[in-house]
Amino acid sequence: MSFDTPIERRGTHCVKWDSMEQIYGVSKETGISMWVADMDFATAPVVNKAVQDMVDHGVYGYFGDDSKYRAAIQWWMKERHNWDLDPAHIFTTHGLVNGTAMCVDAFTAPGDGVVLFTPVYHAFAKVINAAGRQVVECELTQENGRYEMDFAAYDAQMTGNEKMAILCSPHNPGGRVWTRDELQQVADFAKRHDLVLVSDEIHHDLVMPGHKHTAMALIDGVQDRLVMMTATTKTFNIAGSHSGNVIIADPVLREKFAARMAAMGLSPNSFGLFMATAAYTPEGAKWVDELVTYLDGNRRLFDDAVNAIPGLKSMGLESTYLAWVDFKDTGMEREEFTNRVEQGAGIAANHGPTFGTGGESFLRFNIATPRARVQEACDRLAEAFKDLQ
Amino acid sequence: MSFDTPIERRGTHCVKWDSMEQIYGVSKETGISMWVADMDFATAPVVNKAVQDMVDHGVYGYFGDDSKYRAAIQWWMKERHNWDLDPAHIFTTHGLVNGTAMCVDAFTAPGDGVVLFTPVYHAFAKVINAAGRQVVECELTQENGRYEMDFAAYDAQMTGNEKMAILCSPHNPGGRVWTRDELQQVADFAKRHDLVLVSDEIHHDLVMPGHKHTAMALIDGVQDRLVMMTATTKTFNIAGSHSGNVIIADPVLREKFAARMAAMGLSPNSFGLFMATAAYTPEGAKWVDELVTYLDGNRRLFDDAVNAIPGLKSMGLESTYLAWVDFKDTGMEREEFTNRVEQGAGIAANHGPTFGTGGESFLRFNIATPRARVQEACDRLAEAFKDLQ
Ligand SMILES: Cc1ncc(COP(=O)(O)O)c(C=O)c1O
Ligand SMILES: Cc1ncc(COP(=O)(O)O)c(C=O)c1O
Repeated sequence: MSFDTPIERRGTHCVKWDSMEQIYGVSKETGISMWVADMDFATAPVVNKAVQDMVDHGVYGYFGDDSKYRAAIQWWMKERHNWDLDPAHIFTTHGLVNGTAMCVDAFTAPGDGVVLFTPVYHAFAKVINAAGRQVVECELTQENGRYEMDFAAYDAQMTGNEKMAILCSPHNPGGRVWTRDELQQVADFAKRHDLVLVSDEIHHDLVMPGHKHTAMALIDGVQDRLVMMTATTKTFNIAGSHSGNVIIADPVLREKFAARMAAMGLSPNSFGLFMATAAYTPEGAKWVDELVTYLDGNRRLFDDAVNAIPGLKSMGLESTYLAWVDFKDTGMEREEFTNRVEQGAGIAANHGPTFGTGGESFLRFNIATPRARVQEACDRLAEAFKDLQ
Repeated sequence: MSFDTPIERRGTHCVKWDSMEQIYGVSKETGISMWVADMDFATAPVVNKAVQDMVDHGVYGYFGDDSKYRAAIQWWMKERHNWDLDPAHIFTTHGLVNGTAMCVDAFTAPGDGVVLFTPVYHAFAKVINAAGRQVVECELTQENGRYEMDFAAYDAQMTGNEKMAILCSPHNPGGRVWTRDELQQVADFAKRHDLVLVSDEIHHDLVMPGHKHTAMALIDGVQDRLVMMTATTKTFNIAGSHSGNVIIADPVLREKFAARMAAMGLSPNSFGLFMATAAYTPEGAKWVDELVTYLDGNRRLFDDAVNAIPGLKSMGLESTYLAWVDFKDTGMEREEFTNRVEQGAGIAANHGPTFGTGGESFLRFNIATPRARVQEACDRLAEAFKDLQ
């Protein structure tokens, strides 16, 4: 089975394909779904085998000793990210949207400000608002076609009401792999304004050749305010397992978080535990390497084709499979370029404004699909905007 | 595959068998595990097939349209419990410990009192305390060897600080199937003291012949304060899927609950959704009927054997597979009868005091295991207490 082999996802309750018509008005029969951040690939065989083993056993009771699971996480972070962690510092949440929500709940109070570097993954703002906290948008700047940070501007924005910052590292959307120097500046910024720093590194394994992800945990002087978030779910395409890790080295923050986990009655489902234990192995690593090579090919194909369309600009992905395309230079209204993509090209892509300030002229395209489908999407986009040629 | 066929659970990360030595000091090799409330049986074939289908597909992305899942729940509640519910009233939580915690969080404030009818399932008190609320213990009375309620006493206990009551229906431990009349009295009590009433009916499908469970939703005059909780997990032995339902007909309570679900970033894992959709079918129902017949056989065997030991009294289970044995009449200290069970008989059983006031002289034995093992446990108990003969 190669990544080229298409797998039918329509009719399988998958939100990406089965809800596309309802949400974007893109035909279920002929449309191409490029929104939700999951992949159209089967998971790694070693992960699928873990679930097969559960089926063969047939008893799905309460999970107990999780030391192998914790050891697998520890091994992966050391092996793949050069990060030494203490397995006792790991909390398993019900995915990382829940993980983010638990951080907001544990470390801020209603009315507090939470800093986001926008445009950024939309669920952050959703849970912050739902919890009655204030989203404080620090907008990314664009330099040489990629996102950067402007700390002088962010410093000027701070009012003292801010209690937390959530960094998406690597960044979704736009795919930045923040450099060590940039990460140090984020850490310094958090320190300057006394913010708890939540580093959501869910995309850390999907880094394109030539780029190197640095775990925030490796940055100096931030341990006492740092919350790390990681997961198997993006890397291995098992978002349905709703499992994520919140890893906290600082004892005070860890105790606060533990208290809220207990009050929320949260303990992990066994599927996520078995799958992660299987995923974080040499066999899983090998699969991820192959996956990244394939995604890199998709990325180059997509970027080349899209950037050949006058007025369209796909941000060079350093990480993630989420291409971020700017339609600003088409001079079109948002409604028009969106209509051309949805109705013209028959493609469902995430709307830029969902990601906050700075996303207005963008659409986000998920390219984690067989290459022939990426090609088809590119052809359709060229056709939908051919009057610009 | 019949319920008689033993399935090896040791070495499968199951907490019940693999943690018994560490927690109870009962030998992993020779001990019999009768604590944690899951069964030593494989789940229903129709449920296992749902997971097999997931494996065969191999893509574990985000779940979308859940209308079939909701319809399955609706069908089951109507078909099995004569309860008409609106599928739009269903929330799926990360299991019912989380469901309970979400109720406490949504409907009470720190310091508020939450009424429990003790002895009762231990996690209720755990999440209430962890959330900084007060457990208010209303102790069950024993009449003719079964638990009953004493509302005159409970009325006298109320201070006005109580905001919620959690009923376990059927009751764990002790297995009472509350009668319609008793449920009406609980409803009246909740009304009298203006309490939100949470009815945890997780054991509602495992009701012994001759008894009839009544959903609290069928009781008059309680809809505007009622929260129903149900799950597939006990019925089909899939606790590892960590899925449960909180069902709220009242729009004001429902809105409050929805707001907290959003703030906590909770949405269900796909395993629980696929498994529940498969479980709540005629095929699933047939399996449950066979299961209950088998459990009833185990129950009679266990009760007869235990009650033949002078000084031991097993409460007649009307529901659940959790036998509740009183050692009071042995005249022994708790330490002694516990030691005889653990060290003498080599059986791990839950300690009564965990369940709150009224549990002091009890141990809880899980009899959802192949009958030969129940017989073996009975033989060992008879031997461990043979000096009482
Ligand atoms: C940065 C980031 N965090 C979290 C998530 C979602 O996490 P989960 O599915 O574990 O809730 C996503 C999904 O796209 C994401 O991009
Ligand atoms: C009454 C009751 N509620 C809830 C639970 C546990 O629910 P879950 O596994 O969904 O958290 C149990 C388990 O024994 C129980 O007896």
